[in-house]
Parts: sequence; C-alpha cells; structure tokens
Amino acid sequence: MITLYGVAISNYYNKIKLALLEKNIPFSEELLAPGQSEAVLSRSPLGKIPFIKTPDGYLSESQAILEYLEDAFPETPLYPADAYQRGKCREFIQHIELNVELIARRLYGEVLFGGKASQETKDEVLAKVETGLTGLARLMTLSPYALGEQFSVADVVAWPHLQLVSFACQQIYGRDLVAEHIPGIAEYIQLIESRPHAQTVSTDRAAALEAFFSKK
Amino acid sequence: MITLYGVAISNYYNKIKLALLEKNIPFSEELLAPGQSEAVLSRSPLGKIPFIKTPDGYLSESQAILEYLEDAFPETPLYPADAYQRGKCREFIQHIELNVELIARRLYGEVLFGGKASQETKDEVLAKVETGLTGLARLMTLSPYALGEQFSVADVVAWPHLQLVSFACQQIYGRDLVAEHIPGIAEYIQLIESRPHAQTVSTDRAAALEAFFSKK
Repeated sequence: MITLYGVAISNYYNKIKLALLEKNIPFSEELLAPGQSEAVLSRSPLGKIPFIKTPDGYLSESQAILEYLEDAFPETPLYPADAYQRGKCREFIQHIELNVELIARRLYGEVLFGGKASQETKDEVLAKVETGLTGLARLMTLSPYALGEQFSVADVVAWPHLQLVSFACQQIYGRDLVAEHIPGIAEYIQLIESRPHAQTVSTDRAAALEAFFSKK
Repeated sequence: MITLYGVAISNYYNKIKLALLEKNIPFSEELLAPGQSEAVLSRSPLGKIPFIKTPDGYLSESQAILEYLEDAFPETPLYPADAYQRGKCREFIQHIELNVELIARRLYGEVLFGGKASQETKDEVLAKVETGLTGLARLMTLSPYALGEQFSVADVVAWPHLQLVSFACQQIYGRDLVAEHIPGIAEYIQLIESRPHAQTVSTDRAAALEAFFSKK
C-alpha cells in the first residue's frame, strides 16, 4: 500500500497520482503542503511534495517515485519493454521537465502565489521556454500519444506539465506558447482526458484549485 | 558499442563517461561542442551534450542515458538490487541535479564562458544553492560513499557535479559552499579519485579545461 503526500494543485503530484491510477496500484492520499518543518523534512529532504510512503520508507522527487512504482509494481507497465525505447521515454521526460516545466516554473510565483516575477526573469523564461518547446516538438510524435501508438509514461508526464505551462505562459505573455510550438496539442490533451483516470485527476485538481483560489 | 558525444569539460559528459568506464562498457568518444546545427539537433533535441549513439539510435539527457546503460548492460550494476534502494539512488540524483547543480549552473556563464551574471541572479542562486546543499547533507551519508558502503550510481553523479558547483561558488561568492554544508566532502572526493576510472576522467577533464582556457 502506497501513501501519496502533497496537494492536488501540483502538476508533479498529479503526475504520480495518474501513474498510480493507470497502474492500478492501491494508494491513499494525504493532503500536505510543502514546508520546512522537521516532520516534512525528515520525509522529503527539501520539504517538497509529492513524496510517497512505501513499505520500506519514504521517497521523494517525482521521477524517482515514478521509476520506483514501475520497478516495484511491474504488472501494468507504463514503460515500453525495449531498453532503448525506455531510454527514449526517459529522454522525453527529462527534456520536458528540465527544459520546459522547470523553466516556466519561475513564473508560477506570479501566476499562482501572488508574487511578482521581474522583467529580467520573464524575458529569460520566454526565450528558454521557446527553445525547450521547439525541442519538445522534435520529440513528441502525437501519433496519437506523446511517443507513439501506446499510452505510456511519457503521457503521464506530458499531460499535467503542458497544461500548467500553457496556462502560466498565457497569463504572463498573453500567448499560448505550447499551442504555438506544438500543433495538435489541443486534440492530444482531449485524448488523454478521455481516459477515466485522467478525468479523476482533473476533477480533483479543479476542486483543489477552486479551494486554493477561494482562500486567497 | 557505444559512442559518447560531447566535451570533457562538461560535468554531465563526465558523469556518463565514468559510468561507461565503471561498467566496463566498450565505447569511443567523439569530441562535439553543443550547437544548433541540424546535424546536432537531429541527434540531441536541444543541441545539448552529452548524447550517445546506441545500436538502436541516438539518446540524449544524461539521466536517460545512465538508466539506459544500466538497463542494456546489467552485468556490472551501478544501482542496488532492491527497488526501494534504487529509488533512493534516483531521489539523490534528482535532488543533486535539480536543486543543486542546475541552480549553480546559472553561474557558469560568468565562471567559464566570459559572460556576466546579474546581481539578482547571484542572490537568487546563492539562496537556492544553500537550500539545496542543506537538503543534500540530509541524504548523503558519506559512509564512506554517497549512499552507503558501496560505490554506486550516486557517486558517479555526485563526484563530477559537486566539484564544479564548489568551484563555481568559490569563484562567484568567495566561499566553498559545498564544503560548508557537507563536512567530510574533501575526503569523499579523494576517495572517489582513488579509483582508476575516476582518475582517467579527471586527467582528461584537466586536459580539456586547459585547452579550453588557452583558447579564450
């Protein structure tokens, strides 16, 4: 039994939640905000969410969690069977997280948390996100899934991240950079959201966002 | 047979090179600077190095490469056999790369490439690197290796990254932030460098750095 800790407004939380659902792994959710208390830090070294509790202990960092779930629960694989194709999935995930999501993340303070990004930050992020999305367009086949004919771990990662990046860029720049760089992305998002488990994640996220913004 | 593309001044290149050597995988090196030509982009979607050529095609993003090497060449494993312990290795790697190395990387333009980081960037990086290193100190056991009694993939990653982060922070802030936050790190670096393969990587890196700086 796995416990997932975090908040449903987090795209990294939703990445893990969708993986758990798609792999049919029994789990429970514990609502927990990121924080610097010892209670959180002893389980997640930077106080970040998501993290999970496993029968052997706690584990943080979403990609480490995703790999663990695939390792420990091989029955319903999300990775392809071939080592090179698994490599291509991991290349895709690293790319979308390092070169797109973590770049755009520097806007979230302003978009979600009432902060203010400097013009220097906005200019730097714009250039880097466009470079990252140009690279992403090279990798993403949309045929019809992110990396081919089968739903895979690449979709589990792309779906929550690209939605938030798209939203943040629209808020800051007034442009949907994701759609500009990746034609067909709207149909792709619809395809993923035709899956019952994605609908569950989406519904829970909407409720969490509503609660979050009504508190502000 | 694997071909490794990139430059030996790159800590990510040296991460992969040390993994190849420690796993006794036959490989050759092709000197290649990162770039935006179609010849590079068709093999590495952002034009970044390192990337490798495998019998099945090209693969970029260093952590995807490392996982591929472990997957495709299981004979000399660098990851522990237990799924949870493998998870802890991946948590460590994600943490050191996302929360330490990629933060400090924003200084490299000034430290290595003749650019200039703004005071805003330096202040932001300082705060975030200190947070990241505080978290790293929670994870790194130095007993005597990064995560325990055995040399593992955690060491393959920690060694090249921490040296460069330490160097960059000393150049910009006049402080060895790595040593301040992680007591015992000097002895750890010495321990890794007692390994013949690490010495090979280190020697090649020194030659590449000398060539790089003499051209400037």
